[in-house]
Amino acid sequence: MAAPRLLVSRRIRATPYTPRVEALGVSGYSVVNHTVLPKGFQKTVEEDYWHLKKHVQLWDVGCQRQVELHGADAARLAQLMTARDLSNARVGQCLYAPMIDADAKMLNDPIILKLAEDRYWFSIADADMLLWAKGLAQGMSLELGIVEPDVWPLAVQGPKSDDLVARVFGERVRDIGFFRFVVIDFEGQELVVARTGFSRQGGFELYPEGFSLGLKLWDALWQAGADLEVSPGCPNLIERVEGGLLSYGNEMTRADNPLECGLEQYCQLDGSVEYIGLEALQKIAQAGPERMIRGVVFEGDACPACQHPWPLTVGDGQVGYVTSAIWSPGFERNVALAMLNRGYWQAGTAITVNLADGSQRKGVVRELPMQES
Amino acid sequence: MAAPRLLVSRRIRATPYTPRVEALGVSGYSVVNHTVLPKGFQKTVEEDYWHLKKHVQLWDVGCQRQVELHGADAARLAQLMTARDLSNARVGQCLYAPMIDADAKMLNDPIILKLAEDRYWFSIADADMLLWAKGLAQGMSLELGIVEPDVWPLAVQGPKSDDLVARVFGERVRDIGFFRFVVIDFEGQELVVARTGFSRQGGFELYPEGFSLGLKLWDALWQAGADLEVSPGCPNLIERVEGGLLSYGNEMTRADNPLECGLEQYCQLDGSVEYIGLEALQKIAQAGPERMIRGVVFEGDACPACQHPWPLTVGDGQVGYVTSAIWSPGFERNVALAMLNRGYWQAGTAITVNLADGSQRKGVVRELPMQES
Repeated sequence: MAAPRLLVSRRIRATPYTPRVEALGVSGYSVVNHTVLPKGFQKTVEEDYWHLKKHVQLWDVGCQRQVELHGADAARLAQLMTARDLSNARVGQCLYAPMIDADAKMLNDPIILKLAEDRYWFSIADADMLLWAKGLAQGMSLELGIVEPDVWPLAVQGPKSDDLVARVFGERVRDIGFFRFVVIDFEGQELVVARTGFSRQGGFELYPEGFSLGLKLWDALWQAGADLEVSPGCPNLIERVEGGLLSYGNEMTRADNPLECGLEQYCQLDGSVEYIGLEALQKIAQAGPERMIRGVVFEGDACPACQHPWPLTVGDGQVGYVTSAIWSPGFERNVALAMLNRGYWQAGTAITVNLADGSQRKGVVRELPMQES
Repeated sequence: MAAPRLLVSRRIRATPYTPRVEALGVSGYSVVNHTVLPKGFQKTVEEDYWHLKKHVQLWDVGCQRQVELHGADAARLAQLMTARDLSNARVGQCLYAPMIDADAKMLNDPIILKLAEDRYWFSIADADMLLWAKGLAQGMSLELGIVEPDVWPLAVQGPKSDDLVARVFGERVRDIGFFRFVVIDFEGQELVVARTGFSRQGGFELYPEGFSLGLKLWDALWQAGADLEVSPGCPNLIERVEGGLLSYGNEMTRADNPLECGLEQYCQLDGSVEYIGLEALQKIAQAGPERMIRGVVFEGDACPACQHPWPLTVGDGQVGYVTSAIWSPGFERNVALAMLNRGYWQAGTAITVNLADGSQRKGVVRELPMQES
């Protein structure tokens, strides 16, 4: 059966870019943070994959809502909410930051933008982290403001991103470092331009404030990109799985800790900074994680979408599960992201993928990001 | 353009009833609490409206997730989170309960089920209230468990609900009082059966624990209801708007307080119980609310869906906005829910509805629930 249609209301929010993506033939939506996220256009996922790797795309990622902390206790609360060490973070820096609870379970994996010593944006995945922040601040009687600003991120992704963004904002954007941002003037308003994005093909995320500025931004980039083959796009599942980019709610949930998710490099474990969940996370680190996110490649025809985790087995025993999977035209095999139990996560381990229809496919564990071989 | 399709993944959760509603031809979904909510079947909204008022329907409301509080401080945290006085609440009671922040802004409007003196379920609308509860508990060092149980509500709504539910569970269910619940045995497991639901046509909400029990429950009710013309259904927009049933995220958001939402009867304002936002709410009550949710009926052909609020005007001035609207076959006019400024919310006030396409319709303010006249 074809997927049922999404009914949009005030509660399921449109973005400034919705009129443009609908005019360009968006074929499907997901919902993230009570906001629509385009999931495809007229190209197939494979055509879109090759386009993303060769050209440049505009992605409506307005669903990446910002949780802004500002005021006296903003820095304190920001640090309490993440296992990432923020003590040396500088203004202009973007930090991928696991957020965990007191049991060290994953609550979110935002990028934090440090806007000032007392002002932060948490650019969040799909969960109402504003409520977590407000609950903590209320319970601890902290002094700060916690708001969702009227900011609607727009991503420019692909190898021609520098060319496109430079045409609109000038050559200086080429000098923006990886996971750094600058504030530039656009139409008389401040615009955060960050070298980040949910692909491995390079590019930027732009943070316009207000619907009207967002629409002007889309149109300026679109018009400047005609001869660069600019296309509407969205996170590409093939590229994301090959690249090992994790999606909160898919690869990781409140059942997982950041070490299981392969995020140890973003966790300060030595006790030099205090955050919620530190003690629990230190214990997990000492014992070693029980399971780990890895790549899997597997045989057979192009697989269907993984809507519920698929069991991974060795003999009769379950040793993990697949969370996202798709056919890779580059690998000429199916690729997947999976959680694997200890003893089975080494690259090269042979496993069996058990699809929802009961069929079995031979597979092998890979390191992330996955390389063709 | 037809609405784009919703792409389901692990993150956008299916419910135990998803296979059944898809087999029955669900035509559209919304997403609530990271979970699909059916929005229509083969009947038109009007056909569904008449069916709901005459017969009985099964509604997949698995998206009404439960936030369970249990343990020593459960009662204390439950009261802190709502303006509703819980001091005299009894086990077996369901309480419609506005949740507000320290500024008295609406965070959610769940039904609270008091399961035991130290155990509560908050059956929530669309926001991650688990994170608000966990943040408060963490910040205040409270002693309790806060979890989302594996419970998937199924609603039975319509005038034949008592007959259908009695066939499956026995005659005793007819004695369940309005906004009361009992725990009965079903397939050897405990099942909460509550006389509640998001329509004004009577019925129950059932709370099975686990996917397999949910599926058995659907099938038992479906099979028992064949000669009662049981049908799959969902909250019906016509019936909901006429009945003045508010949808969090549509009629009310974090921008509104409960007095503006007409929920004063659910707010304890005399200071006899302490909760977050009490002081702010008392100030608002003293000054009187600045605006109020009301019904509106308006002229012209059947209106399109209201995806963004439509301004309400008197002369050149905006005096409010419509949040939900639809053609009512009973009223033979369009009906709407709207937020109206002070001075304009009296029943009978003439206003102009400004649709998204620029057209204007003559309308009049009504009390809620609206009556045909």
